[in-house]
Amino acid sequence: MTLVNGVAIDAVAAADRGLAYGDGVFRTLRTQDGAPLWWDDHYAKLAVDAAALGLVCPEKNLLEAELQRVALPGDAVAKIILTRGVGARGYAPPAEVNLTRIVAASPLPGHAGATELRVRVCRLRLARQPRLAGIKHLNRLENVLARAEWSDPAIAEGLLADADGLLVCAVSANVFLLQGGELLTPELDHCGVAGVARARLLAAVPCRVARVSLAELARAEEIFLSNSVTGVRRVAELDSEDTLPRRVFPDTGWRARLAAALA
Amino acid sequence: MTLVNGVAIDAVAAADRGLAYGDGVFRTLRTQDGAPLWWDDHYAKLAVDAAALGLVCPEKNLLEAELQRVALPGDAVAKIILTRGVGARGYAPPAEVNLTRIVAASPLPGHAGATELRVRVCRLRLARQPRLAGIKHLNRLENVLARAEWSDPAIAEGLLADADGLLVCAVSANVFLLQGGELLTPELDHCGVAGVARARLLAAVPCRVARVSLAELARAEEIFLSNSVTGVRRVAELDSEDTLPRRVFPDTGWRARLAAALA
Repeated sequence: MTLVNGVAIDAVAAADRGLAYGDGVFRTLRTQDGAPLWWDDHYAKLAVDAAALGLVCPEKNLLEAELQRVALPGDAVAKIILTRGVGARGYAPPAEVNLTRIVAASPLPGHAGATELRVRVCRLRLARQPRLAGIKHLNRLENVLARAEWSDPAIAEGLLADADGLLVCAVSANVFLLQGGELLTPELDHCGVAGVARARLLAAVPCRVARVSLAELARAEEIFLSNSVTGVRRVAELDSEDTLPRRVFPDTGWRARLAAALA
Repeated sequence: MTLVNGVAIDAVAAADRGLAYGDGVFRTLRTQDGAPLWWDDHYAKLAVDAAALGLVCPEKNLLEAELQRVALPGDAVAKIILTRGVGARGYAPPAEVNLTRIVAASPLPGHAGATELRVRVCRLRLARQPRLAGIKHLNRLENVLARAEWSDPAIAEGLLADADGLLVCAVSANVFLLQGGELLTPELDHCGVAGVARARLLAAVPCRVARVSLAELARAEEIFLSNSVTGVRRVAELDSEDTLPRRVFPDTGWRARLAAALA
């Protein structure tokens, strides 16, 4: 089921600014019998991201009630989208905003249980835009283009670097590296989405937020991906078409440790 | 009136990838009693932009017929949006695409007749993304944020530079500069939209496509904006909060010359 502004209808105005300009933000989260996992964190991040675009986030209780209305039984995925709604033609944000609020549920994807991934390094380089860095906004063409680089179903994810060759994230996940026994995760002040699972890991385990060049992947002892729906997964095999050699990573036990810390 | 896939309905599926990711392209063009101005150019550009995202553009005749169905009398504006339609959850483009096609008309904005503009230099710097440069895609949050920098209705447009301080475009127009009696327009290989009016001007008048730094605006003899809906307008007054002095530009007669060349 999909709720648009609380109404069970799968339709948004064709002139919605979310469609016209990607003028909005979103959240994807895991639910258990309708109860959203890490809801406090997700709501806080949604509100911060909305504010970064000048949008006022709806009340927490309202969204929570709508998540329950769309709930699927067992483990599932929910998505919340907020857009600046319909406005006059042109880029200028309307003085009075009638937010569009979409709450929808979908089944947990079949691959969600996998914890050992084959991953590639994407050719696309993320543009550096400090004004939008960290925000989960609706301008996600870079993710689409990066994900379109491969169709082999054995490859689960792609690592992304920015125009300066700095590692940023994966297509749908944040990245952690083990290097010299130390856990690192890339700075997200120029691009990328700062996910809730990443924030929770940073609060739970010693980890250094650092500039990590793509080349340093060759020195990593292990690489992990974090995501609110799939938790902590590890890169078992890393393919790269360009500079980096193909690598296979044995399980050091860190994944289970990080997954436990996240839970 | 709005047509969505040929049906007179103002509704798009909430799960449309145009809304979820900005996964699509668009055109805004001027119509005269329903006849689209520079239609051959607009259709060609729409097809090129769609192809850049791996989308197959609908037939020209189909779009033309739909533009006539939504037509408003006299001078008006039409918008065509193409998105990758509804797909499974996640960034991966669906193997089989059911394109969403939106054709809508709106009245010509009241300010469309103005040819002398007060313009500002925006603080926002455009991110450099060669993969998306020139394409009129639906990821337009940078334009929204730039346009949100001012609310003074006396200011009609904002000039935008990229992260390297190179002039790119205006929020809704391309830019031309007169410098030492020579006409220049910025390269659009790292960001910006390569508009149809710009392409038509480049074909009609001697003009050098160049790297132009924001600082060079101080040396410009005159600045012009081009756009498919409003034609060629000139910057009569340029405001800047930062480095550049406020400037007033007398009319050299070039605007009328360029407007004639464009027509």
